[in-house]
Amino acid sequence: VSDQRLIDAFCTTPALAAHFSDASVLAAMLDFEAALAVVEGRAGVIPAAAAAAIAAAARDIDPAAIDVDAFIADARRSATPSIPLVSLLVERVRRVDPAAAAYVHWGATSQDVADTAIVLLLTRARPVLDADYTALTNDLTRLSDGHASTVMLGRTLMQPATPITFGLKAAVWSSNVWDGWSRLRAAIDAAATVQLGGASGSRAALGQDGRRIGVALAAELGLGEDAAPWHTRRGRLAHVAGTCAILSGALGKIARDVALLAQAEVGEVAVAGGGSSTMPQKRNPSGCAVALAASARVPGFVSSLLAGLVQEHERALGGWQLEWSALSDTVQATGAALAAVRETIASLEVFPDRMRANLDATGGTIFAERASLLLRAAVGRDGAETIVSRALARCRQPGVTFPAALAADADAVHALGAGRLSTLDRLDDDVAAAEQTRRELLHRS
Amino acid sequence: VSDQRLIDAFCTTPALAAHFSDASVLAAMLDFEAALAVVEGRAGVIPAAAAAAIAAAARDIDPAAIDVDAFIADARRSATPSIPLVSLLVERVRRVDPAAAAYVHWGATSQDVADTAIVLLLTRARPVLDADYTALTNDLTRLSDGHASTVMLGRTLMQPATPITFGLKAAVWSSNVWDGWSRLRAAIDAAATVQLGGASGSRAALGQDGRRIGVALAAELGLGEDAAPWHTRRGRLAHVAGTCAILSGALGKIARDVALLAQAEVGEVAVAGGGSSTMPQKRNPSGCAVALAASARVPGFVSSLLAGLVQEHERALGGWQLEWSALSDTVQATGAALAAVRETIASLEVFPDRMRANLDATGGTIFAERASLLLRAAVGRDGAETIVSRALARCRQPGVTFPAALAADADAVHALGAGRLSTLDRLDDDVAAAEQTRRELLHRS
Amino acid sequence: VSDQRLIDAFCTTPALAAHFSDASVLAAMLDFEAALAVVEGRAGVIPAAAAAAIAAAARDIDPAAIDVDAFIADARRSATPSIPLVSLLVERVRRVDPAAAAYVHWGATSQDVADTAIVLLLTRARPVLDADYTALTNDLTRLSDGHASTVMLGRTLMQPATPITFGLKAAVWSSNVWDGWSRLRAAIDAAATVQLGGASGSRAALGQDGRRIGVALAAELGLGEDAAPWHTRRGRLAHVAGTCAILSGALGKIARDVALLAQAEVGEVAVAGGGSSTMPQKRNPSGCAVALAASARVPGFVSSLLAGLVQEHERALGGWQLEWSALSDTVQATGAALAAVRETIASLEVFPDRMRANLDATGGTIFAERASLLLRAAVGRDGAETIVSRALARCRQPGVTFPAALAADADAVHALGAGRLSTLDRLDDDVAAAEQTRRELLHRS
Amino acid sequence: VSDQRLIDAFCTTPALAAHFSDASVLAAMLDFEAALAVVEGRAGVIPAAAAAAIAAAARDIDPAAIDVDAFIADARRSATPSIPLVSLLVERVRRVDPAAAAYVHWGATSQDVADTAIVLLLTRARPVLDADYTALTNDLTRLSDGHASTVMLGRTLMQPATPITFGLKAAVWSSNVWDGWSRLRAAIDAAATVQLGGASGSRAALGQDGRRIGVALAAELGLGEDAAPWHTRRGRLAHVAGTCAILSGALGKIARDVALLAQAEVGEVAVAGGGSSTMPQKRNPSGCAVALAASARVPGFVSSLLAGLVQEHERALGGWQLEWSALSDTVQATGAALAAVRETIASLEVFPDRMRANLDATGGTIFAERASLLLRAAVGRDGAETIVSRALARCRQPGVTFPAALAADADAVHALGAGRLSTLDRLDDDVAAAEQTRRELLHRS
Repeated sequence: VSDQRLIDAFCTTPALAAHFSDASVLAAMLDFEAALAVVEGRAGVIPAAAAAAIAAAARDIDPAAIDVDAFIADARRSATPSIPLVSLLVERVRRVDPAAAAYVHWGATSQDVADTAIVLLLTRARPVLDADYTALTNDLTRLSDGHASTVMLGRTLMQPATPITFGLKAAVWSSNVWDGWSRLRAAIDAAATVQLGGASGSRAALGQDGRRIGVALAAELGLGEDAAPWHTRRGRLAHVAGTCAILSGALGKIARDVALLAQAEVGEVAVAGGGSSTMPQKRNPSGCAVALAASARVPGFVSSLLAGLVQEHERALGGWQLEWSALSDTVQATGAALAAVRETIASLEVFPDRMRANLDATGGTIFAERASLLLRAAVGRDGAETIVSRALARCRQPGVTFPAALAADADAVHALGAGRLSTLDRLDDDVAAAEQTRRELLHRS
Repeated sequence: VSDQRLIDAFCTTPALAAHFSDASVLAAMLDFEAALAVVEGRAGVIPAAAAAAIAAAARDIDPAAIDVDAFIADARRSATPSIPLVSLLVERVRRVDPAAAAYVHWGATSQDVADTAIVLLLTRARPVLDADYTALTNDLTRLSDGHASTVMLGRTLMQPATPITFGLKAAVWSSNVWDGWSRLRAAIDAAATVQLGGASGSRAALGQDGRRIGVALAAELGLGEDAAPWHTRRGRLAHVAGTCAILSGALGKIARDVALLAQAEVGEVAVAGGGSSTMPQKRNPSGCAVALAASARVPGFVSSLLAGLVQEHERALGGWQLEWSALSDTVQATGAALAAVRETIASLEVFPDRMRANLDATGGTIFAERASLLLRAAVGRDGAETIVSRALARCRQPGVTFPAALAADADAVHALGAGRLSTLDRLDDDVAAAEQTRRELLHRS
Repeated sequence: VSDQRLIDAFCTTPALAAHFSDASVLAAMLDFEAALAVVEGRAGVIPAAAAAAIAAAARDIDPAAIDVDAFIADARRSATPSIPLVSLLVERVRRVDPAAAAYVHWGATSQDVADTAIVLLLTRARPVLDADYTALTNDLTRLSDGHASTVMLGRTLMQPATPITFGLKAAVWSSNVWDGWSRLRAAIDAAATVQLGGASGSRAALGQDGRRIGVALAAELGLGEDAAPWHTRRGRLAHVAGTCAILSGALGKIARDVALLAQAEVGEVAVAGGGSSTMPQKRNPSGCAVALAASARVPGFVSSLLAGLVQEHERALGGWQLEWSALSDTVQATGAALAAVRETIASLEVFPDRMRANLDATGGTIFAERASLLLRAAVGRDGAETIVSRALARCRQPGVTFPAALAADADAVHALGAGRLSTLDRLDDDVAAAEQTRRELLHRS
Repeated sequence: VSDQRLIDAFCTTPALAAHFSDASVLAAMLDFEAALAVVEGRAGVIPAAAAAAIAAAARDIDPAAIDVDAFIADARRSATPSIPLVSLLVERVRRVDPAAAAYVHWGATSQDVADTAIVLLLTRARPVLDADYTALTNDLTRLSDGHASTVMLGRTLMQPATPITFGLKAAVWSSNVWDGWSRLRAAIDAAATVQLGGASGSRAALGQDGRRIGVALAAELGLGEDAAPWHTRRGRLAHVAGTCAILSGALGKIARDVALLAQAEVGEVAVAGGGSSTMPQKRNPSGCAVALAASARVPGFVSSLLAGLVQEHERALGGWQLEWSALSDTVQATGAALAAVRETIASLEVFPDRMRANLDATGGTIFAERASLLLRAAVGRDGAETIVSRALARCRQPGVTFPAALAADADAVHALGAGRLSTLDRLDDDVAAAEQTRRELLHRS
């Protein structure tokens, strides 16, 4: 049985689907109940024998043997998966130690289970993302270092601008991904906080012991602890979602850039790609397609979760019940984009010659900014504009480059001297500037 | 094995989950390939024997026996589920008729399969929604008719306004749901159009036969036909999503209204409700919670699909690859809200006495508009305001109602006469007005 | 004074900004109050003299002379612009006919004014959109007709697919815009319905006359009439927003396609474009940038409006108060995208030679589908794949085209004959197929 | 002339509208150009005299005297407001020092101006938000402290749960707002980073001086400096938007809670409120309506900005051009919600008696959890459930409370003793637990 669904094929990865599977979800909820019993037993809040029986029963439940449809029907009936979970656990404890059944879920409320489970799931999914992140940035660093001197067109508003290096472009990609992942990793860590609020979020049922049990429970589960329950303080979860969107946006940007560079007419990179069902010659940038499709879903997931922050009173009606699915969707889609970009970059072929050819094909018009600044200093703004415009007009003729047109322009020669004009299209300064920026970006990320 | 996932428990129903399950998706794709072969065989575009072999092989594939993980991995590699589908079908055809394998997927492209499959899935899911819609509106009509004379507070900006009837409120709910479902049903019907565009959307591979094959394919699949392929004309699909959001908004409104009426302090309705994991007295409006959670996700799903409409060239990179999951999520969440509201309304208890008591508890201040209009006609705007304000101030004292305060106000008596004042709080006109509106609303829906 | 704001420069047009300006908004609200008085006067619900005085006073108010900040402060205090509007009108009526002041806003509620005003604004903005739509589709039709035989690459997943014509591409653009505008126009027309519900949406204050006044008011304002008020039935407004997103998506698609075709390396079109602040050679597709920026905001606007459909009781708290700005933003951004695309297409230069050159630059690999189908019919699936793969491999060498490689392949010649192979790269059938589809698309739109 | 627009009345405040007005926007852009000239003059990159002339000319421009419509038309034509800005400045410099005109905007690109301007605007708007935040949290702290012992119903899923204090509820509100504002303040500070990338983001036009000029420019403008330009690294701006949504969600939650508590049937709080246009008795929670309307728009604004992160190459087509309006909308709507909630809380009246009465009206069923836990420890899970269910059933009869029903239940008395039962409804422990949590929350925020 697969944890994935065909209709959602582009919105997850096998590893992430496993982390949000029924088995994982049930395990996380049972972990909460077991750990709660254990720490309450230790603290003398419930009998030690009951604690042991509950923990053992929780451990012995095989998630794969649960009737998921019945479980979900019960969850839907009560608007929380915690009700069927507690029923299940009570029934299993009862089998081995009827008295212990009294102490299952002691002092907790449904949302305590659900909230702790979702942060456990996020925490457990984190290494999957981290591994893909590390592989991707290693490849990007390698690409960037390897192409520190590979000159290519900078492109702005999808038109040729001034020269940069492919090393710089790869460094921008890397820096963007680093920024997104740094935020997301920190957001998950901050959200990894146990929930134990009890019925109305004041831990009243645990009396004086509330805070102490909370601290111990956090330690038992390897989670952080918030001095106060967070039933309607959802900023940390919203922040996880928001940072997923920043990361997935960074990934979408790489995917679009690669697809643009891989166009037949541009030809500056190639990717392993996927075939077509009917066109044998096709080598589609399918990793880019998957990354763009997955990342395009994230902002919508996030907007629902953000809209759901308007949560009523002590525990809400609707707003928090949507968070499980919204967070799971958000993290899985982000991870799908990450995996697709990682595979795309891992297979990326770079063609420096074609980069140079595309740069040369502009006929040197990309040096018009440089010419313009030099001329402005020499003959003022109007004079510079006149000369540059004239040269640009001339180089629309075949075979004439912009530097050549300038060199043939008496005013230009008079203003700058033939020597300076002859070096107009030297790329050294562009490469040096790109290299300085590239190093700053890579150094940080 | 369940078609549902625990983490998404509130975002679907068992019936809808089945309609978007791997088995359904595979079946829809195979239906396309089988029908294509059949009509091409009939038209002499491919050999009749090959057509029969392909159709038979497609029929014989057991979706439950597919290795879904491998299938999805292949789909991800090529950014389309059609590639592994065609591979699968070719392999099966080959087993029984090697020559026929040449004619699998003849003249079609990946997106033809995927697009036709998604509209088949929408079409097949429609009756599930229709059944819940019918049950819900039957209940709403029954409730509305039964409470045509049940007076209750109208509430605006969450404060008491003027009297209405519960019959009117239920009719508004019904009309809203009718409006949403009418739009959605029509949108699905309009979208139920076969896709057959070939590689670049011009059906070039089918030559002169393109249009004819398209018409026959539509008939074979029970779908409509668009004279031109719609690879990048996604308005119909976007419209399905948009209308889902209108319906789910209408459902969310009912859920919120019911939850507000079911508050302990209001107590005008009760629902079957769900229990709490720790508070035995609780009867939570869990159907409302599920409906609100599900419907709150829909606008976000829709926004991604709308953003994805910016689709490149003849078939896009990313924009259409996100539609399968976005449409599936949208329809399932809408259906989840619909089912939850249906169950909520089916169990709704209405308490007319409490409605009347809450109305009475306003101390008749809800008749201030009526008094104001009467007084304005008699003594002008300023005079009316003075008298009404005075009476409202007086009735802040315990035991004094607004009509009583007015009746004790010499200016008011002088202006309107004691007789007219004594009928100020008669509800007949309110009921009559509500009834007229109620009938209009129910008549239409 | 401008109706536009610099920070929102790309999200509106001068004409649309005027239609949603303070002056327009005030005029629409005053139109409601004047028309209400007029029809109530005619019906004998209020004195004829009062009606005349109110209508005259409303007409005499100069929107430009209003203290907007004070007006807005009052609107914010009461969560509705109708309160300051009624205050203003009462004060003006009072000046000329104190008794008439009693009858201002008779039987109506705040939302009646606000809802009627927004549909009046939508209705009045419609011709602005219509004019741009007409100009755009005229240009697209002209382009499509003029390039019915201009062969170009079809591109799927941003890679060369099979040949189409530019005429077909322009027809797809046109059809998409037609679809979007048809939906939006119809949606605005359907939404153009007067609101007159009174305090709780049952028109109780107008008693028996409610429906009659509603019908007359609609006629007076040139709007449609809904037999029942629609204070919380917002499907029609949501539909206007949703269809705006479908249209703006269609416009974004054109903008992205044009920008892709206008890339220096593709060079198949050029647009008038905008300059750069520092690079004199630049000719940026600025109309595409504006269209993409504007259209990218629409799905977010729509999602808020859809989320706001969950409206409490008889008139909501928050959900409808957001609609004015959300609808205004949606329509203006859609109109901004429309105007930008219209200008872009009006200035579009098409370069058939470059289209042909890019097609030729594929080395005929775009005929691999055709070869594949022919070969499959002759030698089966495996044989065809072997031959085509071999030819594709060969034509990776410089100077070798795919058709030439095939013609040099003994198996291919044996299978298809040299004659058939020699016509493999004829474009006639592609053009014919494109033309058939093109005509269907243009005929409809 | 107002900076506000009537149609957007609920989406901004006067102070924020001023900060994003044309005058502010122009000033911020001119500040960039002036500061750039000054630091380039100091560094010897441009002549000192030119720098002085440019700075003086920038200072002398009266934003109020600009033809905004023409300016915007030019901005739209070039897809950037920087083009008309540079034109304007060049023309003004030319008047006083023609030679200096050559050095306007030296080495910068359009996006450098636009990006620096938007972060200046965010930075300058920050104190407006801060002032409202401080006033709001001061009021919330005062409310919370003043009601540390005011017992009220905790409510979960919109039904009575267990007792809390109003002090705790206000502390949760405060903590949520603190969390949101802390995040937003930090996000604005981090985003307050100068942009100076030049044509392709490598500062090539400034050669060796690039980094040094960047550092000096940041200091001159009071902004931070990023070692590398961030033309397509938009994480910081996206983070500002995302955190706005977290804050506005926290504000929406307060608004909804207050509106729920202010319902006539609940009556636990009252707000200054706004009037109705037709119902004199109305005291609408209009601040809540405005806050909910404003905050409900934010997630949609954010989703567009997040979707726009997919930015092409070195400077994007569409993605960044939407950020100005999206960020301005986001911050203003968040600020509108903040101001509305601040005013609402400032006027909040709290009715402890009504809170107690509503609590008492539950008939003590809210102590069922407590009874249940006590009984479970005594007689096991099944026994406890039997006794509690029996008591809950009995107290459905009028006049019987749950504690009384338990006290009359022989099994309950046997299990717990009459003494323990008699203290079942003591609220001391609830208050103590709430107080502990309250202190933790307030201490932190």
